[in-house]
Amino acid sequence: MGLEYDGRDFSGWQEQGPAQRTVQRVVETAIGRVAAHPVTVHCAGRTDAGVHALEQVIHFDTAAERPMRSWVLGTNSNLPPDVAVRWAVPVDDRFHARFSATARHYRYRILTRPTRSALSRDRAVWIHRPLDLAPMREAAAALLGEHDFSSFRALACQAKSPVREVHYLELARDGEIIELRIGANGFLHHMVRNIAGVLITIGRGEAPASWTRDLLVVRDRTRGGVTAPPHGLYLAAVDYPDAFGLPCAPVPDCSRTPSPMGCP
Amino acid sequence: MGLEYDGRDFSGWQEQGPAQRTVQRVVETAIGRVAAHPVTVHCAGRTDAGVHALEQVIHFDTAAERPMRSWVLGTNSNLPPDVAVRWAVPVDDRFHARFSATARHYRYRILTRPTRSALSRDRAVWIHRPLDLAPMREAAAALLGEHDFSSFRALACQAKSPVREVHYLELARDGEIIELRIGANGFLHHMVRNIAGVLITIGRGEAPASWTRDLLVVRDRTRGGVTAPPHGLYLAAVDYPDAFGLPCAPVPDCSRTPSPMGCP
Repeated sequence: MGLEYDGRDFSGWQEQGPAQRTVQRVVETAIGRVAAHPVTVHCAGRTDAGVHALEQVIHFDTAAERPMRSWVLGTNSNLPPDVAVRWAVPVDDRFHARFSATARHYRYRILTRPTRSALSRDRAVWIHRPLDLAPMREAAAALLGEHDFSSFRALACQAKSPVREVHYLELARDGEIIELRIGANGFLHHMVRNIAGVLITIGRGEAPASWTRDLLVVRDRTRGGVTAPPHGLYLAAVDYPDAFGLPCAPVPDCSRTPSPMGCP
Repeated sequence: MGLEYDGRDFSGWQEQGPAQRTVQRVVETAIGRVAAHPVTVHCAGRTDAGVHALEQVIHFDTAAERPMRSWVLGTNSNLPPDVAVRWAVPVDDRFHARFSATARHYRYRILTRPTRSALSRDRAVWIHRPLDLAPMREAAAALLGEHDFSSFRALACQAKSPVREVHYLELARDGEIIELRIGANGFLHHMVRNIAGVLITIGRGEAPASWTRDLLVVRDRTRGGVTAPPHGLYLAAVDYPDAFGLPCAPVPDCSRTPSPMGCP
């Protein structure tokens, strides 16, 4: 299933007990009602509190047989308004939302203007001064390709290897909004937010464009910048091998092949 | 002052007593704290419950002397997160936010896709089938210029004349979003939502493109279509004579001349 959600009122994806409202719990509850049995869902990327998803991909096992339309509409009617199923397709037992993924795509939105915004308050980070895109782009280019991203991983990150391959990292400006667009074979914990924090510092002129290259070399999180806030971050799409037959993705950089199912 | 707001949790602009949360009340309260005396604000266009503003323009009278920066930042610090001041400029006594306005600009956002959206749930109307833009554009063209818009005004509308001049009416598609962009010398009550309702019906193939022309001729609201929901509507900008020296506007169609104040 492909899911969209507004992360504002969630304590992130992962179930943390009844005191926290999590995306995982509301999704498992909704699908369980359609399946008529309890389900456990597995996701492509566990998003933190406040982080949004344009397309999170999940899978679950069920013996219930329902038309795909019923999985989508039935689950949506059992979900709260801030989570929505976009599509559902049957997959075979080899598919795993997390382990079958070949690449992930994130967006980080930055609003640059003198005054705070009402409509973007939980959808983009607000920077009250203009950012200089040229050094940000130079700094971003240094992160392309395969690197040890130890300086950009949370101290609590549990991934075995700090090595990831960044496929693209672009900064697009549309009026007052700067959108950081990044795709990689995988991401360490807080990696996008730590990259955003460093690039924003460079855009403010508080660090040179060469800082990203230096950070790759030192491989030390304590030398990195602040972690940018969660509410600017969007999980945008996830790539899988074509053999699984997933619908085409909502963002153009995703490599999933367009298929007749679910394409706009 | 230019204001941005998220209309979701408001019962519209106009004060209706303590049981209703209105934009007018929170703005008057916030400005009153900065001015240190009660203020009454007048707006360019009284938006209905659920309607958003990219830029609502207001004025108020005060004897308090504050730097413009203090009016903006002080008011913002006294406003809830879903309302924000974008700019403030001093104007002379001839200025009136409503009566000095020479044109108003609205946007109406339509999300067309098979499933509902979490992130756009209160920001665009959701239509689960594709809309055919060609007849919508043909129908929109018939509304350009000066007409009697009686078929597009709310039955409760209190305007003396039903005649308005539409300066532009465009339909722009960006992926799953269709944005209706309209500018006119003024609008009748519910006029944009009634135009949107008629165009959506035409886009669905449930009425011919000629319907808008017929409606202009019959001048009868009961023959018009449904009023499209408020949450797709945005007051986008308001035009004033250059002599008042207002900052440049947030949308490109606005005719206000760019000035050094407040321009991005």
